[in-house]
Amino acid sequence: MQPDKQAVKAYLMDLQDRICQELAEEDGGAGFVEDSWQREAGGGGRTRVLDNGVVIEKGGVNFSHVFGGELPASATAHRPELAGRSFEAMGVSLVIHPKNPYVPTSHANVRFFIAEKEGEDPVWWFGGGYDLTPYYGNREDCVFWHQTAKQACDPFGDDIYPRFKKWCDEYFYLKHRDEARGVGGLFFDDFNELGFEQSFAFMRAVGDSYTKAYRPIMAARKEVAFGERERDFQLYRRGRYVEFNLVFDRGTLFGLQTGGRTESILMSLPPMVRWEYNWNPEPGSPEAELTEAFLPHQDWVK
Amino acid sequence: MQPDKQAVKAYLMDLQDRICQELAEEDGGAGFVEDSWQREAGGGGRTRVLDNGVVIEKGGVNFSHVFGGELPASATAHRPELAGRSFEAMGVSLVIHPKNPYVPTSHANVRFFIAEKEGEDPVWWFGGGYDLTPYYGNREDCVFWHQTAKQACDPFGDDIYPRFKKWCDEYFYLKHRDEARGVGGLFFDDFNELGFEQSFAFMRAVGDSYTKAYRPIMAARKEVAFGERERDFQLYRRGRYVEFNLVFDRGTLFGLQTGGRTESILMSLPPMVRWEYNWNPEPGSPEAELTEAFLPHQDWVK
Repeated sequence: MQPDKQAVKAYLMDLQDRICQELAEEDGGAGFVEDSWQREAGGGGRTRVLDNGVVIEKGGVNFSHVFGGELPASATAHRPELAGRSFEAMGVSLVIHPKNPYVPTSHANVRFFIAEKEGEDPVWWFGGGYDLTPYYGNREDCVFWHQTAKQACDPFGDDIYPRFKKWCDEYFYLKHRDEARGVGGLFFDDFNELGFEQSFAFMRAVGDSYTKAYRPIMAARKEVAFGERERDFQLYRRGRYVEFNLVFDRGTLFGLQTGGRTESILMSLPPMVRWEYNWNPEPGSPEAELTEAFLPHQDWVK
Repeated sequence: MQPDKQAVKAYLMDLQDRICQELAEEDGGAGFVEDSWQREAGGGGRTRVLDNGVVIEKGGVNFSHVFGGELPASATAHRPELAGRSFEAMGVSLVIHPKNPYVPTSHANVRFFIAEKEGEDPVWWFGGGYDLTPYYGNREDCVFWHQTAKQACDPFGDDIYPRFKKWCDEYFYLKHRDEARGVGGLFFDDFNELGFEQSFAFMRAVGDSYTKAYRPIMAARKEVAFGERERDFQLYRRGRYVEFNLVFDRGTLFGLQTGGRTESILMSLPPMVRWEYNWNPEPGSPEAELTEAFLPHQDWVK
């Protein structure tokens, strides 16, 4: 079966709508504001931002669909089969930074790439996943998050969840800190092994399960009382998020280097962040527990 | 004349002392705290941090001297003449983030690199410079900063200041924002064209002139009254500083990728930062003046 680009695009735009609606409901504040933009070289997007909500301090849910007549040389250097092809890339990408340090930050992304040439089969794949970044670890939340991810994967094969959970652990890793960004989830790329129909179904299963995994955690933790200590720790830990996104995240770097829309790409950065030289939490504190008990890679679902 | 590594090291350690003393004096608070560290693969450093001073919100002045038996492959890929050589790298690197948004952030660095092999001439060079990042532009300060830089350069040739001023403009540039990081200063690397003695003298002239260029600006602006509006703008602009250092700065990335001491490398990051989606200053405001009148590259010294 030939890839149905229009069906993927329709799904992604609808997914953006549904995610924004669910998160805005759980937030209970003013909701998302949309900013549509065009890309000179082809395509554009709908950036939706929730700023200073009740639960969400800053959240961005971005849909984009970009295309071009020819892939840049950087993109084809390691994939000579793509040279001379036109391409389309579309996806939904989101990051939610809550105010309350007891509500974890979450990130999700689903995307589709296709490169075409007349008279030849298209080259295409799906990618995506989601991952959770708590400030104060909660075992119940981590298990629920991973169970929801696993349930989304299981209909597509027993190996899917373990493979993409491991890939997520490896991808969201700060080498210079020797530390995971968070407690992981799913990450996949270059995915076409099930053929178009089933690969697309898998991407939808991941996309649809994000709010199922995140909203109950938001709901459960948004009322937990917190003070300056927790807030300080959250701002400090957000520094790690910035370090990962600007130093390691391939999507961010590729976007910035290839003239993507900077404000939509850097929408992922937290609203307020602090760095402190050589700061370390007190041994035995809940802050130390994050790095000791939650960030080390582990099997959350047995 | 053969390079005198010991003389360079002694100069750099003394320079760190003198810079810390001058900045602590101008700050008027508790001064710098030293943290000595060793590098497993060879060498170490003295990191000095001034946290929460009277004028300086966070300042770091780092001396390091690292060495190894063989350069990493990444370092010799573009410089095959260095393969199989032992190396030493030493330098002083500093960033000062003031509290008052009317006092610019400043950065300075001087460094020496040498790669040796028995029976062959050593390969060596100096590098360094300094640059200024104002939040609220002040023409007088920019001119004074560049005049001081030019005076340091002039004894070494008429072309030195224009060349290294231009290199600084080009280096400290955020391509994804199409915007300079600040108002520039000096930047040089691979510098050995004057022979060891004069090249070393030039590096000293740059190192010695940093406090001459920065301290009077600190002194002149540290008492200017400011409110929440200026502070908000400062935190917002500091986001650009983080973006540059984590996405573009070669020293930062090289350090993080090659197992440098993370806390000393990221000492350059501001203490508190904010990002806001698609924020733009009001036309005609002092905040807009920064990007309109100060950041565009220009000749500050006629």
